[in-house]
Amino acid sequence: MPDNQPSTDAVIELLGLLAYAELVAFDRMAADARLAPDLHRRALLSEMAAREIENYHRLVQRLRDLGGDPEVVMGSYAGALEAYHEQTEPRDWLEALAKAYVGESIADDFYREVAEFLQAPDRDLVLDVLHDSRYADFAAAEIRAAIAADPKVANRLSMWARRLVGEAMSQAQRVAAERAALAGLIAMGTGDFAGVSALLKRLTSAHTARMAAVGLNN
Amino acid sequence: MPDNQPSTDAVIELLGLLAYAELVAFDRMAADARLAPDLHRRALLSEMAAREIENYHRLVQRLRDLGGDPEVVMGSYAGALEAYHEQTEPRDWLEALAKAYVGESIADDFYREVAEFLQAPDRDLVLDVLHDSRYADFAAAEIRAAIAADPKVANRLSMWARRLVGEAMSQAQRVAAERAALAGLIAMGTGDFAGVSALLKRLTSAHTARMAAVGLNN
Repeated sequence: MPDNQPSTDAVIELLGLLAYAELVAFDRMAADARLAPDLHRRALLSEMAAREIENYHRLVQRLRDLGGDPEVVMGSYAGALEAYHEQTEPRDWLEALAKAYVGESIADDFYREVAEFLQAPDRDLVLDVLHDSRYADFAAAEIRAAIAADPKVANRLSMWARRLVGEAMSQAQRVAAERAALAGLIAMGTGDFAGVSALLKRLTSAHTARMAAVGLNN
Repeated sequence: MPDNQPSTDAVIELLGLLAYAELVAFDRMAADARLAPDLHRRALLSEMAAREIENYHRLVQRLRDLGGDPEVVMGSYAGALEAYHEQTEPRDWLEALAKAYVGESIADDFYREVAEFLQAPDRDLVLDVLHDSRYADFAAAEIRAAIAADPKVANRLSMWARRLVGEAMSQAQRVAAERAALAGLIAMGTGDFAGVSALLKRLTSAHTARMAAVGLNN
């Protein structure tokens, strides 16, 4: 379906968004790792962070191959991504884990959907840089254990998760308004406004299911 | 020379020191990367940081294989290593680079010497986790370029390097006083006090040569 192929510009935009997201997630998670209660857990979050840098390199390499300037393209997304992280700085280990579990899972779901609008090799690259599910499993197990030990934690983390989602949505709207090529890619991929709305609905259901799975409520 | 073989306890201590050093260097460098003037440089320092985590895992694995408890052994070195980093927090990109160039090179020289006191496979493991020289080359090139652009930088960074070395020496003395098995490994490896003194002299000469190579003075 050559009519449906996204423009190179749109692919460059998507890769730039993803690359900058990896870079900023890297240093935020590296900092969050210091909140860990022991060295084993600290190392595990540090390891999650380090993985983002490998992914960053692969994305930037492909962005360059497509003729994009990484500095310029990534710079367009710096404002929204830095704002998200500044507004959602975890105050303790559980908030850090919940941020990884909630935030990165939504981001992954979104990228997984968008990957379907791309051709190879970009589709495979985007699917490849999604987070390893064992990290989400680890975060989920920690959250469950914390709630089992102190049920009041559920309320606090549920509120925190709502804040994460609210901030993510507000920054996503900003990006959609500012970056026409990327918004176009998603509009074209989903078909129409009903398609975009269906996509948001799928993201929301998956998020709700994940929250319930660890004992949090929406 | 079976008489000269270091005790397993001493090797465990050394691996614990190295492992914790990697973990703390990881999150400090990850934070320093934010001082970079552009995304390319930021990614490069982030990549250096991420490498430390891979090394961390290899060291902890071996430490466990030898029967050590990573949490306990690493915990013994936390005070000295965190104190070093707290006392030497870079205020800008050049201080961050100079810290990587000066501090990690001295540490690498030290570990390279100590590796010679070990048997395989520990000797090879320690040699393997030394820093990739291309990172030192990158830092050196950046420092040289900054001094070429503004010669006053040389004075400021020379003072900064003296502070780094002073703080490192003071923490090294603390470790030597507190951790008898590790101090014993070095004393045994070098043979006697004259040997320790010769080792310190070699570390100092190499440091002086590195400083001169980028236009800094001792």
